[in-house]
Amino acid sequence: MSAHPFDAALTLREIGPGRYAGRTSPAYWNMVGPFGGITAAIVLRAVLLHPQLLGEPMSLTVNYAGAMVEGPFEVQVQPVRTNRTTQHWTVGILQNNDQGQPLITTTATLITALRRETWRMSDIPMPEVPTPQEVPQGSYGDDLVWLKRYQLRLVSGGIPREWHGGGDDSLTRVWMQDQPARPLDFCALAALADVFFPRIWLRRATQVPAGTVSITTYFHASAQELGETGTGWVLGQAQAQEFRHGFFDQSARLWSEAGRLLCTSHQLVYYKE
Amino acid sequence: MSAHPFDAALTLREIGPGRYAGRTSPAYWNMVGPFGGITAAIVLRAVLLHPQLLGEPMSLTVNYAGAMVEGPFEVQVQPVRTNRTTQHWTVGILQNNDQGQPLITTTATLITALRRETWRMSDIPMPEVPTPQEVPQGSYGDDLVWLKRYQLRLVSGGIPREWHGGGDDSLTRVWMQDQPARPLDFCALAALADVFFPRIWLRRATQVPAGTVSITTYFHASAQELGETGTGWVLGQAQAQEFRHGFFDQSARLWSEAGRLLCTSHQLVYYKE
Repeated sequence: MSAHPFDAALTLREIGPGRYAGRTSPAYWNMVGPFGGITAAIVLRAVLLHPQLLGEPMSLTVNYAGAMVEGPFEVQVQPVRTNRTTQHWTVGILQNNDQGQPLITTTATLITALRRETWRMSDIPMPEVPTPQEVPQGSYGDDLVWLKRYQLRLVSGGIPREWHGGGDDSLTRVWMQDQPARPLDFCALAALADVFFPRIWLRRATQVPAGTVSITTYFHASAQELGETGTGWVLGQAQAQEFRHGFFDQSARLWSEAGRLLCTSHQLVYYKE
Repeated sequence: MSAHPFDAALTLREIGPGRYAGRTSPAYWNMVGPFGGITAAIVLRAVLLHPQLLGEPMSLTVNYAGAMVEGPFEVQVQPVRTNRTTQHWTVGILQNNDQGQPLITTTATLITALRRETWRMSDIPMPEVPTPQEVPQGSYGDDLVWLKRYQLRLVSGGIPREWHGGGDDSLTRVWMQDQPARPLDFCALAALADVFFPRIWLRRATQVPAGTVSITTYFHASAQELGETGTGWVLGQAQAQEFRHGFFDQSARLWSEAGRLLCTSHQLVYYKE
């Protein structure tokens, strides 16, 4: 039995202390490079493989410094500071250029921590939306390879059918899951947080080139809570705040089908014109 | 004439390529270390001093790996990738421990970019609030040294007067400016984004130990727009989304008095119990 495409894409081989070799996956290809979410997941996976890992992922920032090309890459992972209950990591992904010189394609920082039972409170309830079963499939577009790796059921705020230049807002709500279904874990969640199409397409009803330059995800769910979500649906919500000078930001929230906030995520996105 | 305390705290001396020496400022002292905002500003200042700088700050992530102690520190700054219009930086702050060994206290990544005139849109208007002149001063607490460096006029959501354990929400709106007044720039804005007191105090009406572990700020204003804001007031808004397992997140927005969104900022905060 072959591995799930997600796990195949995240296959890493240790080649030295904190050094992991991988290969880009055609199954998660975007327009000019891998889907950003799979790159974030690879960063996370490399840290989770490290023998000195303390705790679970809390905060992940991934910066897309340059497009990855098809082929091998190396992930370099360093635990720069280990405290009693938290641990700080720096991560880089490198690929050789045409001259065989290593180039940094991705930088990242990650904080892991021991989760403790404490007072808890959700300030942002899940919006009331139709169930995944009530939402028709396939209204999200599937012209890109990586989109075939997700089952998406759009609740509101889809890619405009007409590019008439007059969008009203930037809010999208969509039920999401890996395709084929796969139990949710931190790596899958890191990727799901980047599934949303560029907010500017929706807000402006104009399809301009756009790409994430930096994404930060805060993981609110524990490994155990993710396990309880299993292969269930995840509700994603994304909205922009400001479009200016060729960049906009996006804030996203992802809930389990049971209404538990799994992560919040923010990104800065480049756009042309 | 002596320098503004903010500029004094950000005084850095180049001691090698990408290496800058500084000293913690008692004027911005928090409970157990410097105010996190001043540390973020120091990170940014070091990059802005670098001779290879391209463009202006767009996205800054600062991770507080360990409390800084009073005394000298070194900022190490590396331009890891320079593209045509964007540049990616990694930054670390180091301090020697008792044995004279360098310890990383802070990791950071920064993206700078050439800002271009493009289509623009604000999706989140500034809330309607009283003007700074209509808001009384000094209701924000000033028991910490660094709080004396800011003039704060609280619009709503102040530190609870009674710790009765029954807060309603986590939303604070406050007019802010440096004290004494100082023209706004990227470093000042990076610090202002961290001025808010811990959301858990408000939401829970219980004062538990809390501290930022990671902050990400997206700069939407250009240097020119910040210059136009001058020494005017900045409206800050902060709100939490989820409190769980000893960590909560905070989302913040900062507007100029004229209603222009200057930056959006997100942080993950540790709390006890």
